[in-house]
Amino acid sequence: MNDKSKKPQKLKARLPRGLEDRGPAEIAATRRMTDAIRKVYELYGFEPVETPAIEYTDALGKFLPDQDRPNEGVFSFQDDDEQWMSLRYDLTAPLARHFAENFQFLAQPYRSYRFGWVFRNEKPGPGRFRQFMQFDADTVGAPTMAADAEICMMAADTMEALGIERGQYVVKVNNRKVLDGVMEAIGVTEEKTKLTVLRALDKYDRLGANGVRELLGSGRKDESGDYTKGAGLSDDQIKRLIWFLTLRSEPWGIVETTRQNFNPLIKLLPTQSEEPHYEVDLLSAFDNAYGSNKTFHEGIEDFRAIEEIVVSSGYSDGRIIVDPSVVRGLEYYTGPVYEVELLLETKDEKGRPVRFGSVGGGGRYDGLVSRFRGEPVPATGFSIGVSRLQAALTLIGKLTKEKEPGPVVVTMLGGEMAHYQKMVAELRKANIRAELYLGNPKHGIGQQLKYADKRNSPCAIIQGSNEKEQGLVVVRDLVAGAELATLEKGRDDYLAKQAEAQTSVKESELVAGVRKILDKHKISWN
Amino acid sequence: MNDKSKKPQKLKARLPRGLEDRGPAEIAATRRMTDAIRKVYELYGFEPVETPAIEYTDALGKFLPDQDRPNEGVFSFQDDDEQWMSLRYDLTAPLARHFAENFQFLAQPYRSYRFGWVFRNEKPGPGRFRQFMQFDADTVGAPTMAADAEICMMAADTMEALGIERGQYVVKVNNRKVLDGVMEAIGVTEEKTKLTVLRALDKYDRLGANGVRELLGSGRKDESGDYTKGAGLSDDQIKRLIWFLTLRSEPWGIVETTRQNFNPLIKLLPTQSEEPHYEVDLLSAFDNAYGSNKTFHEGIEDFRAIEEIVVSSGYSDGRIIVDPSVVRGLEYYTGPVYEVELLLETKDEKGRPVRFGSVGGGGRYDGLVSRFRGEPVPATGFSIGVSRLQAALTLIGKLTKEKEPGPVVVTMLGGEMAHYQKMVAELRKANIRAELYLGNPKHGIGQQLKYADKRNSPCAIIQGSNEKEQGLVVVRDLVAGAELATLEKGRDDYLAKQAEAQTSVKESELVAGVRKILDKHKISWN
Repeated sequence: MNDKSKKPQKLKARLPRGLEDRGPAEIAATRRMTDAIRKVYELYGFEPVETPAIEYTDALGKFLPDQDRPNEGVFSFQDDDEQWMSLRYDLTAPLARHFAENFQFLAQPYRSYRFGWVFRNEKPGPGRFRQFMQFDADTVGAPTMAADAEICMMAADTMEALGIERGQYVVKVNNRKVLDGVMEAIGVTEEKTKLTVLRALDKYDRLGANGVRELLGSGRKDESGDYTKGAGLSDDQIKRLIWFLTLRSEPWGIVETTRQNFNPLIKLLPTQSEEPHYEVDLLSAFDNAYGSNKTFHEGIEDFRAIEEIVVSSGYSDGRIIVDPSVVRGLEYYTGPVYEVELLLETKDEKGRPVRFGSVGGGGRYDGLVSRFRGEPVPATGFSIGVSRLQAALTLIGKLTKEKEPGPVVVTMLGGEMAHYQKMVAELRKANIRAELYLGNPKHGIGQQLKYADKRNSPCAIIQGSNEKEQGLVVVRDLVAGAELATLEKGRDDYLAKQAEAQTSVKESELVAGVRKILDKHKISWN
Repeated sequence: MNDKSKKPQKLKARLPRGLEDRGPAEIAATRRMTDAIRKVYELYGFEPVETPAIEYTDALGKFLPDQDRPNEGVFSFQDDDEQWMSLRYDLTAPLARHFAENFQFLAQPYRSYRFGWVFRNEKPGPGRFRQFMQFDADTVGAPTMAADAEICMMAADTMEALGIERGQYVVKVNNRKVLDGVMEAIGVTEEKTKLTVLRALDKYDRLGANGVRELLGSGRKDESGDYTKGAGLSDDQIKRLIWFLTLRSEPWGIVETTRQNFNPLIKLLPTQSEEPHYEVDLLSAFDNAYGSNKTFHEGIEDFRAIEEIVVSSGYSDGRIIVDPSVVRGLEYYTGPVYEVELLLETKDEKGRPVRFGSVGGGGRYDGLVSRFRGEPVPATGFSIGVSRLQAALTLIGKLTKEKEPGPVVVTMLGGEMAHYQKMVAELRKANIRAELYLGNPKHGIGQQLKYADKRNSPCAIIQGSNEKEQGLVVVRDLVAGAELATLEKGRDDYLAKQAEAQTSVKESELVAGVRKILDKHKISWN
């Protein structure tokens, strides 16, 4: 006891919750993903822009879905002059600030893209991080729905550029005006209640109809015991909202519905009378149901304008659909909202089925820039959750987890370090990744080869005093060596492989000797 | 007055001091730079790793040079559980934490690289930002000087990979033990004074001998009036430190000195007697002067071990030199320290000559990992100040500031939006960057072409009702159009260019028509 307490207190090497380190395979995968996304966005005429991670808190505004959390979801600190600064929680609010600050220098409409880390001071959980990467594209100064339609089509193209096949994803479109119209029509008019209702609807994906029902009513206790206060709607109001929520058009505009879903608000258009299934043109049905509400009607007009382009461009084949359950938590949206959902199911590490859900989304935010400019500035944008999408792509096997080949390792066997270093330099000059073994100089060849294996090295170079005298180096094929370990010792194939796995070459032919092994195993870097 | 006060208070669009947005040219330049650096580091066998921007404050430690500043140089905030977290101020402290946390999974020596943003809560100034990019490489678990020598050579190779020619940069090497030995030899032994002395010496680059003299003595008031307390050394101590500071070997080990620099501490080795110039082997001279001091002697032995590799690998031609003025402000260094200096002089925007100074540096930090592990873990590493180096490369014209060609702009002249959108889709399908004009639908062709010019578009597509009827589109060559503006109207060459600048093609041949113009001006993206 006494001994233990005398030891100096060691510092614990750990990260705060919700933060993580990333290794070579993840980093390479992210680079491939961001390169692919960038290419699509640039094809659509978007140009890059970057903003810093820190902004004035008031410039970012308070638009996060979970304002009730401590510190309101953002990491904040005070500057020397006592002004509050925050880490950005998304890439849209900083873009609005950038545009407002530089609008006189920017071509308008301003189409830009950017990617980078954003930070949320939230309760972390499985797949929920406090630092994650987003990749955004926005068009500022474009008033028509053509900008929104374009971004939805670009989202679809991006998914396919990332290797997600048609039918494995869907871009779901809704409109905040439609949501507002429905709320007005069922008598939800108070601003605060509206917001609570929107947040509840936004959780449909995660909590299902029952969870949303609780949140629309008296409230809900989650698994951890945390209680969220409900919107306090009546049973009838809740019923009408939930019904609305569960419709989904597939392809664009067309909903197949059953008597069970039948609702007197919608005039169904039966395709086969007496059959339990009906095909409904959702927009017409909506228009019939709520068309008299001005806000709702505006939303439907937006939908029609998007429809014109989506249909004529051939994206109405199920790539882009109407889905009234799309809300998008952020407060700043004013018109169309969209969300990309992965339709694939997969299994987690424990073999349980996992639905990916949303991997990106966005919408129109006509009010965000005008906070600074004092005049209306139409804008619409889309954000891909790169970290989330990467996790999904990894799970479905679209991203290779295979380790890159490591460098050629030149081992040290008591010779002059400068001499070994020269061999390394020669290999590097020939554009072959190489390094000198720099561990404990007392380590023998066994430990050094073990290191080379751990590095996934294709081959190791060995020169003891015997070889040195003869002007030779041994090139050891570590790929063949690994195969050797799987064979029965002494057998013919074993002996053949053994001979193959280790060859002596003249020191002057070191590069050629190494290249031979690289070629044999088709090894190249990047 | 009354009217004015009624207006709602507009939010100001601005960034906190020391932070900046970055546009397309800067972003592209950074990508090219980081790609080039990455390639060199990978050739040397380093593999990527990334850590988050946020760490526990105690895990980062307090090693910043300017601890006397408010908030001690880092941005910090408290977590829900009241633990303090900070934004990383460099990439070395997080690497030490990462290694200590994962050492059992990592091949050792662990060679890794990483780049990303770091944050300093410092007084910003010209070229001094509170968020900037670093690109680091570190070898953890390598006890010998071969690791340090290698990193110095890699630094030299990196500079050349970035287009900085041999002779335009230098890698300067010093050793903290040598500095400690000198301080011991002149009677500076108190830890706090030593630190103050090191910080003063570290400012030699920026403040020159006189500024350092003040900081070693009673203190110094800077231009802004801020006062820094001095180390309180005697005149004799100061003299001997300054003399030491001003020596610099070029090439490796060799110092050319004059009687003026002569100091009885060093036994000069005259090459031509009676001449005012002497060639001195700096390491031998040092050894003669302070060799009896144990710490100093250890430092010289480190130098000799580095020398062996640097000389035999051919980097002693002036690429890597000995420079006793190199200190590196960070407290955690324990042995060799190195710095990359750009030797080029250039002029700033006002035509004044500017010396770039240091664009990167590093050293051995054997104690940083052992804070967590409780056992010694040797480590050495190097950091490139990407933002600083990029500013330097831009000034000397190594980075093109030329704007990339923008997308082809399809203008809107009252036809159906869906029809124009189809043309855009066709161009994109042919891998041509293209967009529909999405500005105010009332904008005429003049405003739309102005937009295309501002976007740096190679051509614009125009289809009015006449063309539509005939199944034609006009392809307007905006590059030729820009040349047109420089010619005298009505002249032959003007008329020829004018005919060239605008051609009609069949709608079905839109892609070919655009491709012709792109080929003519040799325009391609990336």
